[in-house]
Amino acid sequence: MKRLLVIGIGAGDPDHLTLQAVKAIAATDVFFIVDKGETKHELVQLRLDLIAEHGRGPYRIAEARDPERDRASPAYTAAVEDWRSRRALACEALIRDELGPDETGAFLVWGDPAVYDSTLAILDEILRRGNVAFDVEAVPGISSVAALTARHRVGLTQVGRPTHLTTGRRLAERGPTADDVVVMLDAHCSFAGLDDFHIYWGAYLGTPDEILVSGPVAEVGDRIRELRDEARARKGWIMDTYLLRRIPAADH
Amino acid sequence: MKRLLVIGIGAGDPDHLTLQAVKAIAATDVFFIVDKGETKHELVQLRLDLIAEHGRGPYRIAEARDPERDRASPAYTAAVEDWRSRRALACEALIRDELGPDETGAFLVWGDPAVYDSTLAILDEILRRGNVAFDVEAVPGISSVAALTARHRVGLTQVGRPTHLTTGRRLAERGPTADDVVVMLDAHCSFAGLDDFHIYWGAYLGTPDEILVSGPVAEVGDRIRELRDEARARKGWIMDTYLLRRIPAADH
Ligand SMILES: C[S@@+](CC[C@H](N)C(=O)[O-])C[C@H]1O[C@@H](n2cnc3c(N)ncnc32)[C@H](O)[C@@H]1O
Ligand SMILES: C[S@@+](CC[C@H](N)C(=O)[O-])C[C@H]1O[C@@H](n2cnc3c(N)ncnc32)[C@H](O)[C@@H]1O
Repeated sequence: MKRLLVIGIGAGDPDHLTLQAVKAIAATDVFFIVDKGETKHELVQLRLDLIAEHGRGPYRIAEARDPERDRASPAYTAAVEDWRSRRALACEALIRDELGPDETGAFLVWGDPAVYDSTLAILDEILRRGNVAFDVEAVPGISSVAALTARHRVGLTQVGRPTHLTTGRRLAERGPTADDVVVMLDAHCSFAGLDDFHIYWGAYLGTPDEILVSGPVAEVGDRIRELRDEARARKGWIMDTYLLRRIPAADH
Repeated sequence: MKRLLVIGIGAGDPDHLTLQAVKAIAATDVFFIVDKGETKHELVQLRLDLIAEHGRGPYRIAEARDPERDRASPAYTAAVEDWRSRRALACEALIRDELGPDETGAFLVWGDPAVYDSTLAILDEILRRGNVAFDVEAVPGISSVAALTARHRVGLTQVGRPTHLTTGRRLAERGPTADDVVVMLDAHCSFAGLDDFHIYWGAYLGTPDEILVSGPVAEVGDRIRELRDEARARKGWIMDTYLLRRIPAADH
């Protein structure tokens, strides 16, 4: 049986790799790289570096070009699902043509494979289509959320209280739904105006370009926006994540 | 300056350790072990095994007994905060007496230090008290949530949708507050009756005793309860976590 590993590689620092991920990389015959063909080539480069360091030959690298996603579409979920289906076709072809019957293939996934990532769902979709059969194993990784809280030395949760994990788009639509909210995939600094909250913000976490800012939104919000615009202009792309924590009424 | 590392060691599997954690353990002079003095000695043993494997001598181990927590108190948060303050006193003494001025001490924290763990808050409290000074660094770890989703090969999040992280107590009080809810610290199978949901349940994740069950709550809920009771009776303790995902109306 073909075997596929979905390996979380952590959020940017090569030392986020777990021993389990190191062993999984060493056990891989074929690494699948789906290249976004964009300015984010540093993200592909980190994967190639990890393979060069931890791969145990002979291994092969099979690349596919990521299908374009319709970023202009207002129907976000539909656009992502359409892109996901086209990506599934590209991955199906790779798995069928590039992976031998008893070989192990791997996708190196940014952060943790369970956090806003589509690789596991794409493999499910390929299995449901039924044109190619394989076993799947997932290797957990350090998510950008774990990286963020560690760098700020702050809890994700408070005693006995919930924490909500959401997207920038959703925060903009609904506002904060709990006293503790982690926001990912935010292209628009949707924390603006949330003056009852403290923000713990991080960009390019775990990489040499890492930027950290924390403080009350009312005080640091503008600085975060400036730093973000500047960094994105300089590097051509940005990845940032933040935790919003409601300021207790007494301190406020 | 004294330096303190709060190192996430993952949720049970020694291979959850990251390369960053391996390096942090190797750089530690004094390991602080706060022993719950209970049946959970396996959890202390895993820490001692990791130290024996990755520690680079000469290192020392300093142990303290964890203060008792008032588990009968209905005021959960107050009871935890009281216990936390007494624990802070015990840790302050350890850091003051057992760690030399330029030495590095470490707490090995189960899972990820940001997820329902009090070590970082305790160190903050000690720093605020001002009797001893030190720098703190946190090393992220694989949380039981990341372990759970990886073992079930399932996403924590769905495209563009929020996921709520909460406790069993809170779920029992409020019910599910989103279509995707992760529940920790649940002593009472508070998923009972949530028949609109699929459950991905895991106990002793990452350890040789790991148990995984998934399916609609209506179908697998009773089996989980039985397995849980049986395992807890056999081992004397249990740690379990689960993801609830609302079953789409069409499938229901
Ligand atoms: C498609 S999601 C993938 C998340 C990834 N699976 C994880 O576990 O972090 C991409 C989002 O993750 C966050 N992110 C990923 N890596 C990051 C990093 N190094 N620093 C800050 N945010 C990051 C950003 O919010 C970004 O928009
Ligand atoms: C005090 S919290 C600590 C959580 C830890 N910091 C983490 O990142 O997983 C303890 C709770 O974590 C969950 N947990 C921790 N380790 C687990 C494991 N190996 N298997 C299942 N659940 C676990 C259970 O819900 C347990 O009640």
